[in-house]
Amino acid sequence: MTRILGIDPGSQRTGVGVIDVGDNGALAHVWHGALVIGGEATFPLRLKRIFDELCAIIGAHGPAEAAIERVFMARNADSALKLGQARGAAVCAVVSQGIVVHEYAATEVKQAVVGTGRADKAQVQHMIGMILGLKGPLQADAADALAIAIAHAHTRSSIERVGIPRTAWRRRR
Amino acid sequence: MTRILGIDPGSQRTGVGVIDVGDNGALAHVWHGALVIGGEATFPLRLKRIFDELCAIIGAHGPAEAAIERVFMARNADSALKLGQARGAAVCAVVSQGIVVHEYAATEVKQAVVGTGRADKAQVQHMIGMILGLKGPLQADAADALAIAIAHAHTRSSIERVGIPRTAWRRRR
Repeated sequence: MTRILGIDPGSQRTGVGVIDVGDNGALAHVWHGALVIGGEATFPLRLKRIFDELCAIIGAHGPAEAAIERVFMARNADSALKLGQARGAAVCAVVSQGIVVHEYAATEVKQAVVGTGRADKAQVQHMIGMILGLKGPLQADAADALAIAIAHAHTRSSIERVGIPRTAWRRRR
Repeated sequence: MTRILGIDPGSQRTGVGVIDVGDNGALAHVWHGALVIGGEATFPLRLKRIFDELCAIIGAHGPAEAAIERVFMARNADSALKLGQARGAAVCAVVSQGIVVHEYAATEVKQAVVGTGRADKAQVQHMIGMILGLKGPLQADAADALAIAIAHAHTRSSIERVGIPRTAWRRRR
């Protein structure tokens, strides 16, 4: 069994999801949540909060691997700067705990969860609930974070099945 | 005496400068350098390198306070995302060591070092060398990092002279 942390970073909300993937590929929900920032006196304090809270979540749940969405572009340079800093803080929290971060494009995440790269948000949220057996509506950022964790679980197990050595695979991403 | 760390973050080069400011306001050069990243297999590994190297520099020099340039905008959304992540990693390295990060606009830095907010890079580099008594040309990113540290040294000492309590001052930034 391997515990996987999925992160959907944002400058205002960072979605976090933790799942277990069994040696047979079975997935189990462990935890999810969304870290809402804002109200901190300075932007560095916002980044500190993302960093500290993610370190605490990692400490509490002990994931062995982590996955985050690869961001290609943002609306504009200003929002890209804010999103970039939040993402940098999230990645640093994970790597500071000695965990490798894997990146997936949004289309790869949708492909893994819904079976098509062009699924919309509602479809993804619905499928996450089905796959992990969750009842009731899922907060969107937490659903995205769980989706990223599931995408990583699928990719790593399909790669393990075809027998590519783990180190080569890590180097390739 | 207070030791100050200045950081000029970038997605490819991060300038770092360390200075001491005496109780009489006198400045002394301690260390400077530029961390050149690139060649790492993944972008998260780049961020890890910024984070780890800055933590090591902080461990080696033990600054009590830190300052970083406030970034308002970038050339485009793509470069803003990369710069933002590098800046996020740099800020997290500092705050993870329990050090408060102060932000200064580029015009504030130039005002503090050259006396005008509209100075060019060559003027800033020249003045840094004069102020800190450095011989020979200074690498541009390291000069910018030293300039940010000097701007913080000036601001904190002028604020201390007019007697604003330190906590209020920190909250204001």
